[in-house]
Amino acid sequence: MLTVHHLNNSRSHRIVWLCEELGIEYRLVKHQRHPETQRSPESLNQVHPLGKAPTIEHAGQLIVESDAIIEYLCNVCGGGRLSRAPASTEYGAYLQWLAYSEGTLFPGLLVDLVYAWTGGGNAALMGFFDVEIAKNHRYVENVLEQREHLLESGFSAADVNLGWSLEFSECRGRLKDFPALRAYLARLRERDGYRRAIERGGPQDLSVFSAGAT
Amino acid sequence: MLTVHHLNNSRSHRIVWLCEELGIEYRLVKHQRHPETQRSPESLNQVHPLGKAPTIEHAGQLIVESDAIIEYLCNVCGGGRLSRAPASTEYGAYLQWLAYSEGTLFPGLLVDLVYAWTGGGNAALMGFFDVEIAKNHRYVENVLEQREHLLESGFSAADVNLGWSLEFSECRGRLKDFPALRAYLARLRERDGYRRAIERGGPQDLSVFSAGAT
Repeated sequence: MLTVHHLNNSRSHRIVWLCEELGIEYRLVKHQRHPETQRSPESLNQVHPLGKAPTIEHAGQLIVESDAIIEYLCNVCGGGRLSRAPASTEYGAYLQWLAYSEGTLFPGLLVDLVYAWTGGGNAALMGFFDVEIAKNHRYVENVLEQREHLLESGFSAADVNLGWSLEFSECRGRLKDFPALRAYLARLRERDGYRRAIERGGPQDLSVFSAGAT
Repeated sequence: MLTVHHLNNSRSHRIVWLCEELGIEYRLVKHQRHPETQRSPESLNQVHPLGKAPTIEHAGQLIVESDAIIEYLCNVCGGGRLSRAPASTEYGAYLQWLAYSEGTLFPGLLVDLVYAWTGGGNAALMGFFDVEIAKNHRYVENVLEQREHLLESGFSAADVNLGWSLEFSECRGRLKDFPALRAYLARLRERDGYRRAIERGGPQDLSVFSAGAT
């Protein structure tokens, strides 16, 4: 049996969502952020030394990192349906979009949040990351003006990964100039799997991260 | 034929290194950082809208993101030898360590660098990232006190990915308290594939990133 450690209003929403999309059975362990600081609770440190969500337990292993968990679940528990195999002409594009979310888009958004939470104070630092964040949203916007999902063949686990990061962008006030990204998010949220993930994992309220957003 | 776009003193060292480890034939296109600002040159923007290194071209596709390129090269061009397959008991661990470098360790190091370059000014922000960086180095140190590489079965492409991030940590003065990480880096640098990558891609001089390191 698969165990998914889920933290409210966090990246682990992706994993609950993916399990619902793939029809994987799982035990859900819910952890709650501190209501004021929004930091993760001690209960996650009991699960893994890094105290991260998502963390999964499967076949005697503990696995962290969204990208890793997504590929693992697709290919070990989900029959590969929402991944792309090495023989696919979309394998490279799939891997890129899977990695892009945490490798490029999210780090800038995290800095943006921590900067706002810690009172600002270094405009040059935020200038660097503001440019990067906007450039990256433009890049994805241009792709999603052309098609409904990241891959031409349709919905994949890469959409689950990037979708959550874009929800985070939205709460930080970063999607105002990007209608294709907002329409893409609306399509993702209409999916049955997304809705079931909210029912089981609990509602997302990313407004807790909107302090300081302009 | 594979084309690898390589920027001096950058993450793309990993891809040259992996190609050498796997014995893949490739055409190397070298790009040079601006000698004062260290920013990437306009020539990379001609290759890909994000102007990133590494970028590869293969079978008519452009692919960015280190993690994606590594998995692609291992499984499409390299016979899977340095990756781990879904049937392996190390598949989850492999995926985690592959994703960990860019997903968790490097973002903090990037903030640390940009913070130093832009003159500091928000101690609370760096306090947040300092704690994260140290916690993550401790986590990997504890693993590498137990074994020579990230996986019990030995060297893998995940070591190529994390190895470069730890070289970056070292240049930022972050490995002083972590002897197992320094010994691991020394082992990686002794590999024939690593040496051939330096011969072909050019020497790494990460000291350009040491300004502000303590």
